[in-house]
Amino acid sequence: MDAFGGDHAPEAIVKGCIKASVEISDEIILVGDETKIKELLAQENVPEGRITIRHASEVIETGEPPVEAIRKKKDSSLVVALQLVKNGEADAVVSAGNTGAYLAGAFRILGRMKGIKRPALTTPMPSVKDVGVILDAGANVDCRPEFLLQFAHMGAIYAENVLGIKNPRVALLNIGAEEAKGNSLTKETYALLKEAPLNFIGNIEPRDVPYGAADVIVCDGFTGNVVIKLIEGTASALFTMLKGVFYKSFITKLAAMILKPGLKTIKAKMDYSEYGGVPLLGVDGVVFKAHGSSDAKAICNAVCAASTYLSAGVNDKIKEALLSQAENEQVIEAEEAL
Amino acid sequence: MDAFGGDHAPEAIVKGCIKASVEISDEIILVGDETKIKELLAQENVPEGRITIRHASEVIETGEPPVEAIRKKKDSSLVVALQLVKNGEADAVVSAGNTGAYLAGAFRILGRMKGIKRPALTTPMPSVKDVGVILDAGANVDCRPEFLLQFAHMGAIYAENVLGIKNPRVALLNIGAEEAKGNSLTKETYALLKEAPLNFIGNIEPRDVPYGAADVIVCDGFTGNVVIKLIEGTASALFTMLKGVFYKSFITKLAAMILKPGLKTIKAKMDYSEYGGVPLLGVDGVVFKAHGSSDAKAICNAVCAASTYLSAGVNDKIKEALLSQAENEQVIEAEEAL
Repeated sequence: MDAFGGDHAPEAIVKGCIKASVEISDEIILVGDETKIKELLAQENVPEGRITIRHASEVIETGEPPVEAIRKKKDSSLVVALQLVKNGEADAVVSAGNTGAYLAGAFRILGRMKGIKRPALTTPMPSVKDVGVILDAGANVDCRPEFLLQFAHMGAIYAENVLGIKNPRVALLNIGAEEAKGNSLTKETYALLKEAPLNFIGNIEPRDVPYGAADVIVCDGFTGNVVIKLIEGTASALFTMLKGVFYKSFITKLAAMILKPGLKTIKAKMDYSEYGGVPLLGVDGVVFKAHGSSDAKAICNAVCAASTYLSAGVNDKIKEALLSQAENEQVIEAEEAL
Repeated sequence: MDAFGGDHAPEAIVKGCIKASVEISDEIILVGDETKIKELLAQENVPEGRITIRHASEVIETGEPPVEAIRKKKDSSLVVALQLVKNGEADAVVSAGNTGAYLAGAFRILGRMKGIKRPALTTPMPSVKDVGVILDAGANVDCRPEFLLQFAHMGAIYAENVLGIKNPRVALLNIGAEEAKGNSLTKETYALLKEAPLNFIGNIEPRDVPYGAADVIVCDGFTGNVVIKLIEGTASALFTMLKGVFYKSFITKLAAMILKPGLKTIKAKMDYSEYGGVPLLGVDGVVFKAHGSSDAKAICNAVCAASTYLSAGVNDKIKEALLSQAENEQVIEAEEAL
């Protein structure tokens, strides 16, 4: 755990990890300034022998240029935490810090899984019904159809093994329902997905995304990032407007008070950051990103999600899927050669 | 006016045009089955000599393949309406029919304005504050930076002359605020916009779109279509969830009743179809698209918007801007040659 990444680090991180240490059986290594971490741990009721500390003297701040930060701050909590996974001293890493630096660090230090063309950020997709996932949510802004095909495989494995969705419905985000709709990327991707051993249900239109019409939504990282940020912004703007309606008069304030608990539930449901950590699928290691604004509860959720991911052996399952995909391609090539 | 395009055609179209004929001084030509239109007009109180009929025997349905429909149904209300503009018998055309067929027809029959690389659908962008526009909203799914630069110019002219926004703030839709953020399309477009004689305010992040942080939002047609449909879907999903909260008990129903008028205002504000017609900027003619589900009021709004557009001479202003852009480029080339 990168103890010094995130808006509320290190306090919220340390508290969140203590919470998590009660819920999971894994050992948690807090990476960062040892003196400060010890101070914080001393203030809390920490279960015996479940949390250790690894000193790191530097911190990568939110605004720093990612690649430069990774290269220069070799003893930052973020880089050291990633190194622990690389060296086999840790099985998974979680950070709420600078997203760009974390992605850059994960790519550089851990690298891609063999056979994976591009790792993808996989975020929960809030909806009226159950929560699904969308990928790529921003790691790859320019994509090729083969990348999206792999995103679909990785997303389906994740949804099945971590979210517990049996035979997840995979859909391609597109601006029309028909196969022939979309831009050149989605048209070519559709052709690949149609032939893949997936529960591919076709295109999903943006309008249906918030209704939970698919479990795994596949798109390029630019579009995916637009989608999660636009849903967040639209929900937030609507709540701003609602507030205007609520504060109109004494009687509307009263009415708003009655509805408040229900409204809070909706707000939480639409906020993807409430769902804890988000995996970077396709890197050679278990890498979870927690939201920058994570509080102790969100950090605890992220650590628990990483633990579930680990014990479900998601990365091994992705490797297996890649292998059978490669074998399939070989068979097809062999058949074509005959 | 294509009297037979749209979910509620021809009834809502005819009624909407009668409404509009009171508000604007232009003559309105209803295109479609003459007998049916006469029947509908006979039921209403029509101002003398303001509405005429042009017979067309065919109708292009919503689900028809656009290009084929345009080619085969030469006597459809949609094609005949476009032809009237081409022949100079009409100054503007409005349709609520099959969007694909309408775009294909406009491109084929009217063609692009000289110098315009790609025409763009320009839709209102609902926000907490005032309404702006986003373009391209779906006419061009694969774009080059030069297209987006022209969208910016056309959008700014439209916002200034039709929406009455002085010196409109033009922004590029992107997944980060900094210049270096985004995919290859947005990065290259940023460089062009920065140098253009526009009030370019930089990138706008999707989160800020519903807050009205820009007057003219520029993006490729795939992204633009995702944006308008996702805002629509998110708002609609939130209202579905709100309903669930409202119907929970007697007391919440009561509270909801008190807030209802305010909620209705929000719903209308977030619905881009409420804003009437949407121009296809860059074609050689005035082409307005009304929403497929338009009622008489929406049709009236679309016809009035087309009339405002026409009297503001927007197309002439776009041509002027193109000319000065071309001159600019010549000057730069000349300077470079020296």
